[in-house]
Amino acid sequence: MRSTLRPDPARDLVLERVVDVPRALVWRAWTVPEHVKRWFTPAPWTTIECEIDLRPGGIFRTVMRSPEGETFPNLGCYLEIVENERLVWTTALAPGYRPAESAGAGDPCGVGFLTAVIALESLGQGTRYTALAMHGNEEGRTNHEKLGFHDGWGKALDQLVALARTM
Amino acid sequence: MRSTLRPDPARDLVLERVVDVPRALVWRAWTVPEHVKRWFTPAPWTTIECEIDLRPGGIFRTVMRSPEGETFPNLGCYLEIVENERLVWTTALAPGYRPAESAGAGDPCGVGFLTAVIALESLGQGTRYTALAMHGNEEGRTNHEKLGFHDGWGKALDQLVALARTM
Repeated sequence: MRSTLRPDPARDLVLERVVDVPRALVWRAWTVPEHVKRWFTPAPWTTIECEIDLRPGGIFRTVMRSPEGETFPNLGCYLEIVENERLVWTTALAPGYRPAESAGAGDPCGVGFLTAVIALESLGQGTRYTALAMHGNEEGRTNHEKLGFHDGWGKALDQLVALARTM
Repeated sequence: MRSTLRPDPARDLVLERVVDVPRALVWRAWTVPEHVKRWFTPAPWTTIECEIDLRPGGIFRTVMRSPEGETFPNLGCYLEIVENERLVWTTALAPGYRPAESAGAGDPCGVGFLTAVIALESLGQGTRYTALAMHGNEEGRTNHEKLGFHDGWGKALDQLVALARTM
């Protein structure tokens, strides 16, 4: 297992689950904008925009909308792409690896910058799904946890699995 | 040419020069800690420590020392490694791609986080050497320029070339 999947309990959050869809479908759900828009945000929130350039240095951009109609843009940069296995991106860099200007306005809850690793392993007909969220410090992890990391990423994964079953 | 070598004049600084040593030696000077320590900091500053794990996500750490004996640690993370061609790292991420905590204490001049791209092209017996420094905003570029980017990175390159000639 690569070094980036050694979570630090003080600064990281992990969602691990076995899901009953093959990892190739999980991969497609994560890497095709039209799919991402259908599962990425727990209802009644929605993802109204998604832009993906699937290569190291490429853009991963989403815009989420609250039930009240407020929009929250997220800009990230892919770091590692191993098809059907491992997807890594960060919000600490803008596309092209440029340092991000600030977590600022898009981060009212003080989560700070985030690096995410999605790791997929085949398990029979299903997939062992691991999502690792790395933060710059303990405060970022704590605020992300309070914001509802486990519930939010869990519900989004439920939506991803429901979508993958229809593929 | 890849997208990360399209400098943005507002936020980037570029040092481009043709040097009379082959690019394989320039590459070695950049990627072997014992070499880096000999050229990385314009004299009378010195580089007293250097740690390199040459893979995406790996550490690039240096400690510089001023003539007065003050030390300045720098922690970075490699992003792209194409032998003899292209080296990319950033200080916006710590090793393992974790978001860096802050540019803070190690950045008294307000340069902020930095992503650097070193691009090498063979030109006869020599090398076209391009160093691109990308900043998060114009302020970072301006402060880096005032701090003496061109003079500093230029003198360091002189030292690199002098060292490469002895290899």
